[in-house]
Amino acid sequence: MPNRYLDILQRVAAGTVAPEEALLQIGQAPFEQLVQGLNLDKQRGLRTGLGEVVFAQSKRLPDLLAAVESLYGREEPREPVLVTRVTAEQGTALREKFPDGYFYEQGRLFALGKDLSLDPPWIPRGDVIVVTAGGADIQVGMEALGTARFFGLNAGFIPDVGIAGLHRLLPYLPDLGKARLIIAVAGMEGALPGVLAGLFPAPVLAVPSSVGYGVSTGGYTALAGMLASCAAGIAVLNIDNGFGAACFAAKLLNN
Amino acid sequence: MPNRYLDILQRVAAGTVAPEEALLQIGQAPFEQLVQGLNLDKQRGLRTGLGEVVFAQSKRLPDLLAAVESLYGREEPREPVLVTRVTAEQGTALREKFPDGYFYEQGRLFALGKDLSLDPPWIPRGDVIVVTAGGADIQVGMEALGTARFFGLNAGFIPDVGIAGLHRLLPYLPDLGKARLIIAVAGMEGALPGVLAGLFPAPVLAVPSSVGYGVSTGGYTALAGMLASCAAGIAVLNIDNGFGAACFAAKLLNN
Amino acid sequence: MPNRYLDILQRVAAGTVAPEEALLQIGQAPFEQLVQGLNLDKQRGLRTGLGEVVFAQSKRLPDLLAAVESLYGREEPREPVLVTRVTAEQGTALREKFPDGYFYEQGRLFALGKDLSLDPPWIPRGDVIVVTAGGADIQVGMEALGTARFFGLNAGFIPDVGIAGLHRLLPYLPDLGKARLIIAVAGMEGALPGVLAGLFPAPVLAVPSSVGYGVSTGGYTALAGMLASCAAGIAVLNIDNGFGAACFAAKLLNN
Amino acid sequence: MPNRYLDILQRVAAGTVAPEEALLQIGQAPFEQLVQGLNLDKQRGLRTGLGEVVFAQSKRLPDLLAAVESLYGREEPREPVLVTRVTAEQGTALREKFPDGYFYEQGRLFALGKDLSLDPPWIPRGDVIVVTAGGADIQVGMEALGTARFFGLNAGFIPDVGIAGLHRLLPYLPDLGKARLIIAVAGMEGALPGVLAGLFPAPVLAVPSSVGYGVSTGGYTALAGMLASCAAGIAVLNIDNGFGAACFAAKLLNN
Amino acid sequence: MPNRYLDILQRVAAGTVAPEEALLQIGQAPFEQLVQGLNLDKQRGLRTGLGEVVFAQSKRLPDLLAAVESLYGREEPREPVLVTRVTAEQGTALREKFPDGYFYEQGRLFALGKDLSLDPPWIPRGDVIVVTAGGADIQVGMEALGTARFFGLNAGFIPDVGIAGLHRLLPYLPDLGKARLIIAVAGMEGALPGVLAGLFPAPVLAVPSSVGYGVSTGGYTALAGMLASCAAGIAVLNIDNGFGAACFAAKLLNN
Amino acid sequence: MPNRYLDILQRVAAGTVAPEEALLQIGQAPFEQLVQGLNLDKQRGLRTGLGEVVFAQSKRLPDLLAAVESLYGREEPREPVLVTRVTAEQGTALREKFPDGYFYEQGRLFALGKDLSLDPPWIPRGDVIVVTAGGADIQVGMEALGTARFFGLNAGFIPDVGIAGLHRLLPYLPDLGKARLIIAVAGMEGALPGVLAGLFPAPVLAVPSSVGYGVSTGGYTALAGMLASCAAGIAVLNIDNGFGAACFAAKLLNN
Amino acid sequence: MPNRYLDILQRVAAGTVAPEEALLQIGQAPFEQLVQGLNLDKQRGLRTGLGEVVFAQSKRLPDLLAAVESLYGREEPREPVLVTRVTAEQGTALREKFPDGYFYEQGRLFALGKDLSLDPPWIPRGDVIVVTAGGADIQVGMEALGTARFFGLNAGFIPDVGIAGLHRLLPYLPDLGKARLIIAVAGMEGALPGVLAGLFPAPVLAVPSSVGYGVSTGGYTALAGMLASCAAGIAVLNIDNGFGAACFAAKLLNN
Amino acid sequence: MPNRYLDILQRVAAGTVAPEEALLQIGQAPFEQLVQGLNLDKQRGLRTGLGEVVFAQSKRLPDLLAAVESLYGREEPREPVLVTRVTAEQGTALREKFPDGYFYEQGRLFALGKDLSLDPPWIPRGDVIVVTAGGADIQVGMEALGTARFFGLNAGFIPDVGIAGLHRLLPYLPDLGKARLIIAVAGMEGALPGVLAGLFPAPVLAVPSSVGYGVSTGGYTALAGMLASCAAGIAVLNIDNGFGAACFAAKLLNN
Repeated sequence: MPNRYLDILQRVAAGTVAPEEALLQIGQAPFEQLVQGLNLDKQRGLRTGLGEVVFAQSKRLPDLLAAVESLYGREEPREPVLVTRVTAEQGTALREKFPDGYFYEQGRLFALGKDLSLDPPWIPRGDVIVVTAGGADIQVGMEALGTARFFGLNAGFIPDVGIAGLHRLLPYLPDLGKARLIIAVAGMEGALPGVLAGLFPAPVLAVPSSVGYGVSTGGYTALAGMLASCAAGIAVLNIDNGFGAACFAAKLLNN
Repeated sequence: MPNRYLDILQRVAAGTVAPEEALLQIGQAPFEQLVQGLNLDKQRGLRTGLGEVVFAQSKRLPDLLAAVESLYGREEPREPVLVTRVTAEQGTALREKFPDGYFYEQGRLFALGKDLSLDPPWIPRGDVIVVTAGGADIQVGMEALGTARFFGLNAGFIPDVGIAGLHRLLPYLPDLGKARLIIAVAGMEGALPGVLAGLFPAPVLAVPSSVGYGVSTGGYTALAGMLASCAAGIAVLNIDNGFGAACFAAKLLNN
Repeated sequence: MPNRYLDILQRVAAGTVAPEEALLQIGQAPFEQLVQGLNLDKQRGLRTGLGEVVFAQSKRLPDLLAAVESLYGREEPREPVLVTRVTAEQGTALREKFPDGYFYEQGRLFALGKDLSLDPPWIPRGDVIVVTAGGADIQVGMEALGTARFFGLNAGFIPDVGIAGLHRLLPYLPDLGKARLIIAVAGMEGALPGVLAGLFPAPVLAVPSSVGYGVSTGGYTALAGMLASCAAGIAVLNIDNGFGAACFAAKLLNN
Repeated sequence: MPNRYLDILQRVAAGTVAPEEALLQIGQAPFEQLVQGLNLDKQRGLRTGLGEVVFAQSKRLPDLLAAVESLYGREEPREPVLVTRVTAEQGTALREKFPDGYFYEQGRLFALGKDLSLDPPWIPRGDVIVVTAGGADIQVGMEALGTARFFGLNAGFIPDVGIAGLHRLLPYLPDLGKARLIIAVAGMEGALPGVLAGLFPAPVLAVPSSVGYGVSTGGYTALAGMLASCAAGIAVLNIDNGFGAACFAAKLLNN
Repeated sequence: MPNRYLDILQRVAAGTVAPEEALLQIGQAPFEQLVQGLNLDKQRGLRTGLGEVVFAQSKRLPDLLAAVESLYGREEPREPVLVTRVTAEQGTALREKFPDGYFYEQGRLFALGKDLSLDPPWIPRGDVIVVTAGGADIQVGMEALGTARFFGLNAGFIPDVGIAGLHRLLPYLPDLGKARLIIAVAGMEGALPGVLAGLFPAPVLAVPSSVGYGVSTGGYTALAGMLASCAAGIAVLNIDNGFGAACFAAKLLNN
Repeated sequence: MPNRYLDILQRVAAGTVAPEEALLQIGQAPFEQLVQGLNLDKQRGLRTGLGEVVFAQSKRLPDLLAAVESLYGREEPREPVLVTRVTAEQGTALREKFPDGYFYEQGRLFALGKDLSLDPPWIPRGDVIVVTAGGADIQVGMEALGTARFFGLNAGFIPDVGIAGLHRLLPYLPDLGKARLIIAVAGMEGALPGVLAGLFPAPVLAVPSSVGYGVSTGGYTALAGMLASCAAGIAVLNIDNGFGAACFAAKLLNN
Repeated sequence: MPNRYLDILQRVAAGTVAPEEALLQIGQAPFEQLVQGLNLDKQRGLRTGLGEVVFAQSKRLPDLLAAVESLYGREEPREPVLVTRVTAEQGTALREKFPDGYFYEQGRLFALGKDLSLDPPWIPRGDVIVVTAGGADIQVGMEALGTARFFGLNAGFIPDVGIAGLHRLLPYLPDLGKARLIIAVAGMEGALPGVLAGLFPAPVLAVPSSVGYGVSTGGYTALAGMLASCAAGIAVLNIDNGFGAACFAAKLLNN
Repeated sequence: MPNRYLDILQRVAAGTVAPEEALLQIGQAPFEQLVQGLNLDKQRGLRTGLGEVVFAQSKRLPDLLAAVESLYGREEPREPVLVTRVTAEQGTALREKFPDGYFYEQGRLFALGKDLSLDPPWIPRGDVIVVTAGGADIQVGMEALGTARFFGLNAGFIPDVGIAGLHRLLPYLPDLGKARLIIAVAGMEGALPGVLAGLFPAPVLAVPSSVGYGVSTGGYTALAGMLASCAAGIAVLNIDNGFGAACFAAKLLNN
């Protein structure tokens, strides 16, 4: 890096760069070098399998379709594309334009070039297992499951095993004991991740869901409860961020 | 009640009460009758064993001693007195003035005329059982236990059985299954009451404790988690309000 | 409802039912994979004394109907079923499918196999009495009343006696004085439970309602006020959780 | 006002004021006129008896003494001075420097040139009556009472009549019925003002106090409860702002 | 309005009405079971000087019409009735049923038996003057103005004089200087009441309005700013509670 | 825009306009009672250098059209007018009434008498450069850009360069290094302004946008992050307040 | 499990268990089985190297010493012990009692039976690398580093590379690019984890620190910013919870 | 301060300093590992125009002294150094070690190599003028004033002109009208910046101060009020961040 500075200074001495201009160039030189490193990193990221994903929420339909088309490419071999937070209306339009795509309404996902196989019966085992506490948490759990599969993970799904019925976990003890990572989705008081972290050796990614009413509204109580949990081995995602949990898992298991 | 109004109106007619004065008397008449009913209720309350309790927090020492002396009375038969939120300094002063009193530092209680027997080993069974999640919740649990005993309840105590170590509950299953009411004290994410409510037939009074750091600070996360719990049969007290839980129990079991 | 299980066990004790037969009746599987992602916890009643109730909020219509049908059973003797947070649309669909069911729109309840008798005139007395502060709290009060009756409690109802008109309590003093438990629903500043706890020997379950505007919005002010109340013998439920208050009462009075 | 503008424009025409300068003068002209009106108002304010009051909190001792000395003046007739939020240490220093001043430690007030007569027994009647809910609210109530008296109001004091003991109000019904304004201080859930507003014709200034623990901490629950009160005729002050309530009363009753 | 009761009592004193007859006129029952769950508190006027007003928000149409009819009475002399928070739909229905009533859409008020004269041009003077900061605060200001007039106050109105244009106050300085009470409505940062309290001798009732976006959303910033104001003589109402400010004024000026 | 006033004053100084004539042109009355309750503060421009802009949000259509017409004037030379927060419906109505106006839907702006040239391709350089973090922040960025241009600023636009893709900044380093002021719009965690302030000599006006879900909801997290930033040279606007940032820039660069 | 039920039923049939007792036994059977599984899991956990750790905060000295002594054992081979949140006073007492222990004051850790080597110079590479944003975040970073080493991880440390000086990251690009997991500690606006997640393939555990003033107070702004981050591959711990991040890492890398 | 770097570059351009020599003078290493974990970012000045300032809060004394010494340099020409948030104890130690330094206790600043002249009488004019609302805001205002002067700005100071006494602004109208930037410090409701922005052409940097009690506690109400202000031309800093306001001003006026 010093060479870069010397180079600038020599141009100043040579009169080809004004001192004021040099001042700016010296100031931004480290950043340039850093973000060029970043570009290299981004390409490495592409190699690891974490391609671009389209966040459909509040996107206008033409913009959404154009974004998907651009990522998917026009010639073989095409790049698989994942779209998240897809509304029913957006899903219909995507299906119309890309008839070979898959729309998973419950998980609000649309996948192109890859079948995520999100329909039941669900396999309750894998390197990463998505566990949901209540019936209403499935939407978020599906987003995590589908994203994980899109990134090539071996992912399982165990819905509806909240702490009010802990015995429902019984049939899954062996599989959960073998997972490398557990993604636990829960609303209300958000107690499920703490219980799982106390039972199994795998660390737990906790995703609060915005399910509930009164003090549960919006998922903040679940979020705080997960952060405050006295059980060791839990880290927490933003409310409803099943996608983020799967990204964490993919970066972890694909590298 | 109409008679009372009629009485007022007749005095107006007789000229012994001015119309303006009558207006005020009529307005407040229903309230007077109501709070007189209240006085009667208070005496019934005294009969049930819920006598006056002194809240020592932020009381000046002379005021505190005077309040205790006044309640305790000067002649036999004396009324037992309970003082809550007693600091070490206040406890010393109370012991000095009332040498036959009991000071329970861990529960911040001082009792006069009644031995609350708060020292271990603790009996883990009773009509009401106080359960605490962590070691640091004992102070609040003790306040609940001592107050319950002061009000004459048959109360047990099971400390330190948080959800990170659910197996610690195993030895107490039979006793907890027979309790009429469970008081569960927990800080952090406050998940213990939900677990207990899912296991036992007794309703659970949940007391959040102000134990913790970060998002647990002050007990608000535990409070919200308890209110949001998806397990049925839980009602919640103010943070650290072990006293209030015991009062609820006493009103319930003594009537 | 626990009676059904006890009844089976008593027949086993009496020798009129073989253990193997009883096992079948109780249900071997700990839960039934009824609708996708929705486990109905039929054994929860065994553990806690309260049977499964269907929470209709945000359930899709086919899932809701299937859940009710499964719980209700297909042969006599059928299990009574309660559905809570029923929308008008859901209520109509339930009535269509189960013509002998009762839909109580004001309380957002649907009951099958049991008439909850929620129409006025209301009886202002019982072991548990539901009291509401304002006209707009009735919806929550009704949920408490109907749930209590579903669980077999002797429950009364006194609407619209907020603290701005305390004299309205006058006619009910004797009945409230005899109740074993009072459920008080209030929005705004949530002061009613504190007043009742100061007047009557029964403990008070306080339910904040989300009625109001400005700082009352969402019921948080009422919730905080109830938790902070200086009157002894109050425990608090989540906002609008009339169902939870009735569950607490049922666990208390049915055990 | 147009004259003022014309005057400016004429100076521009005459070349004695530059256009740029005139632009600023025209812009601020209305403000100048307004705040000059303000100066007149301030003098009227002085006539009404609301003189300057010194807020001692976080003032350094020399600054505090200098401020008081400057207001008190050096020659007869002197202006009475009130100092609020006086710490014990500040009070001692003030007494030392102004030996004929009065230091009311409980109300954290220091008065010079006027005896506020804050010691018990307190007179429970007056044009404005200060009512406090609990023993710990007296400090704030005293600030209101002393300030009201400093401003020349006929002010009474009724401490410790919280809603958990409404019958304590009975002896004071006639006096409260005749007051023109009630100042009600309460912590915890802050329900007292609502009860008073439901009983008496006078409007109620509600002052939340920072007394309490858990959700009461800092007085926010009392504040919200008072604002949300369903009883008509209540207006609310900042937490612990007994001084502000008395100022409102003085502006009202002295004009 | 209390005059009606006083009138009866004065006739009793004068001997033109017998006490028994008066009792019937005042109403023996402390309240009337009008619509299900909606007790109209006719005696509140006796106690507090303010008659019953109907809060239309979230009331069902038949209940609303029945409530108004009952309060209005069926024979002369009728009692004037005020309805607040009236939606356009409710207003139309009220007009249809009570063709001689007045519906003030901007203030969301409906008045029967009394013309509130809320249309411009507005008179900027009176015993109480309602001042609003921005164009969007007028709705709340109108509620205050109309309610004040309903209670018989001499009330003025000065809209749209926020602190970004203080000079707009200039024409109103004399009138504001003579008012006995100022009601100031403001959203955003809520600074208007502090400016008015610094300018005029009258105390200021501050009403935060829910106008704004970002941190202004819902009126909480205005509310806090008004409570925190360093200007003396301000008391604060709940957000958008123009009705409450007028009630305070009426209790103050009518007693 | 202040130029117009300055222009008049300079003509007065030059003797080509008489002071009395100028007075008329500037407008004698400090404000004009245009629509009911809506004072247009034409003099604000005099004081502060920024003319009146119409905030369309929650304005009724007739009021909005009247306000714009009044500001625009009826004769040449007309005053350019800007309207902000224009809905699609309002935009259509404005276009209909003022066919030569410009409606910029993405920026929710309507301009009369001035073309703001908001369509792409955008010029990434200027005295002030508006930078947005994500695709969804463009709406707020557009409001800033259009307002800045309306006030005559030389303003550039660089959208969609959030910190997850810092390398996108590389092409803009020279232009950003020469800007006098940067306006940075960001939602989510709001980190962009801190990064920019660490790289460039220009101070940064940070505008949090309400983009996001979970803890990002409403823009409060971005707001707090911007205020807390450890990078020097950042000042923050209200959430979504692109207009305010441009006003700050105009006052700065136009004076 | 059915066998267990049959066994109970057979005892009922045999008369050795009462029906009421059987009801409880059947209810708790699944829980017993689950927590017995938990015991097995706990033993597996012990094998993975995550032994018991003592949380010293608010523990009384004798209790703390006893806890450490009990875990450390009295005979060889002893179990290494880690104590977290150790105050200076506690550290001194621990050193006195266990002279071969290590007290790391900056990280508030005490280790027995294992040297954590926390003194500089720090190695900036490893499977897990702890990165801190500011000088004041070191305390939390040290807790993470020491805990990770206690659990046997190959852990590196890079302090003081906040986003205001991103170029400081330059020398560490290669090492950070090879890490399997990054732990990023940051206060203020908490932007560091988002920057790291955008640069490197490893997932990032983000730990907000309670460093700062104003809106940064207590770490909530950093916490929210980390949860809201738009960069993928971040999961968040409680404020100051460096210990928890290391536990997550240990469960991940040790299994 | 950037001048120093520019000066070096200009000498390179002039040929009086060789590029290699200049490189040494600027400093080859991008940062210096001065004290453990504390990187001093000497290049930040290059990039942003502001040199490094030492934030003393919570720094240990030896680290603080070492940091100052390193920045100050050991040979002439020395770099002026500013230290902020200096406690009395830190100030004494700094004075002892650097006897020619200036310690400004009220502004919590220590300056080396530059006299900031912060003692009264204060000059009320300059390119940037710092205005404070109350007496207690002076500490924050002083931090802004001293920092601005350290960065070479022509800065004035007008203390104690809060909105409760707007007339105090009158003498300063001309000076404030000529300022290029106003820094306004206010606690309580934070209304001062809005008033100033409505009066003067300069934009206003608003700094909320943590002065106050009740809802003012910590400065959040002032912060929100400033953000919500309806006056155009305001941008807001973190609570008590006088330093940040001066940095913004320096970046603006020095570039």
